[in-house]
Amino acid sequence: MADEHTHIVSSFDEELTRLNNIISQMGGLAESQLISSIRSIVKRDSELAEKVILSDQRIDVLEQEVQDFAVRLLALRQPMADDLRQVVTALKLSNDLERIGDLAKNIAKRAQVLNQIPPIRPVQAIPNMAKLAQEIIKDVLDAYIESDAEKAHRVWERDQEVDDMYNSLFRELLTYMMEDPRNITASTHLLFIAKNIERIGDHATNIAETIYYRIKGEDLPGIDRPKNDAANFAVVKPND
Amino acid sequence: MADEHTHIVSSFDEELTRLNNIISQMGGLAESQLISSIRSIVKRDSELAEKVILSDQRIDVLEQEVQDFAVRLLALRQPMADDLRQVVTALKLSNDLERIGDLAKNIAKRAQVLNQIPPIRPVQAIPNMAKLAQEIIKDVLDAYIESDAEKAHRVWERDQEVDDMYNSLFRELLTYMMEDPRNITASTHLLFIAKNIERIGDHATNIAETIYYRIKGEDLPGIDRPKNDAANFAVVKPND
Repeated sequence: MADEHTHIVSSFDEELTRLNNIISQMGGLAESQLISSIRSIVKRDSELAEKVILSDQRIDVLEQEVQDFAVRLLALRQPMADDLRQVVTALKLSNDLERIGDLAKNIAKRAQVLNQIPPIRPVQAIPNMAKLAQEIIKDVLDAYIESDAEKAHRVWERDQEVDDMYNSLFRELLTYMMEDPRNITASTHLLFIAKNIERIGDHATNIAETIYYRIKGEDLPGIDRPKNDAANFAVVKPND
Repeated sequence: MADEHTHIVSSFDEELTRLNNIISQMGGLAESQLISSIRSIVKRDSELAEKVILSDQRIDVLEQEVQDFAVRLLALRQPMADDLRQVVTALKLSNDLERIGDLAKNIAKRAQVLNQIPPIRPVQAIPNMAKLAQEIIKDVLDAYIESDAEKAHRVWERDQEVDDMYNSLFRELLTYMMEDPRNITASTHLLFIAKNIERIGDHATNIAETIYYRIKGEDLPGIDRPKNDAANFAVVKPND
């Protein structure tokens, strides 16, 4: 009997490990999709952008796998307490990672437009912003694998830097559009790309909040802190 | 014994009903937040916009309630098969509805900017687009309450109309910005507002897909149909 019990317990742990492996795989893919989508802008490489668009499906398939696996685990194993929270956490994380994949795909679609028109200067701010978002994704996944609540907290705080970069780029792009109407199409797509990166940062902070709650059983301190997005909603006027 | 069994079954049904009631309540709030956010643009009413921004928290609280309730149901009742799928469906729906609430809040924030600057003509397209999105939310919630897969399918198809309106508005706004740099700030916020409405439509179609799958046990036909978003990624050039 004791052996049989041990066997069941260890097998559930194995299944949780498998679930975590799929999450890690999704995270790695989301990170690499973001990198490639940005590279397709910087290198003006529309073929790479096309690859990103087609690869998004791999993340979608993994999300479906997490969901099916989690539902099967819930039904067959009927986990309690901490095990149950782990399964629910995996479900939430897979949702955020799938959304990050979607946003990278949207960046790649916009890259294909940008590659048809002359480049404009503010494009240079995009890779820096994306690099930060990518580090945040990487670190938050480490926090998940290591069950490190403090690391999750630190990652969460860094998202403010992404927001600050977005706010300053938003103003710059508006001014740029006002200078010359020929800049408008490119600037508009860059605005949406910057917004997508900002939203990727938001999904990474969601993940940090979910991990923190899962480990500590309470909300991350400062979670109700209002976003510093005032600049984003400021009125920018042309010089006329 | 038979009575006790009946009692347990009926009580689980009661709990599912309570879960569905919270979802309906979330849906009603999401719908009314969208309506108010659009009214705050049309009537240039920044106080109403502020009310929308503050009310978003009510949807967030309900989402947390759904999650806590679902996890408790899973742990205490250990539902199987169809009951389990109902709980997982509720979790997914609450996530989409919370995102719709966030998007309405973002529209209200942008309304407060628009109300500080002179109105521009393309703003008139926004209420029509929002009305369609709102009908889609309403109908998809009806499909949920009535467990009507065919209705979910019909709702899902209507999202194409929202996308078409977005694509035409996108082009119009870009042209408008090119005509006069003084239109740029307002046009940019209208672009993001239109994008938010388009995303609200996407969340409503996610809900339709989830409901269809929950009832039929298979994906909605045509779910892999590519989005007709080509216009959105077209190159618009100024007349120069």
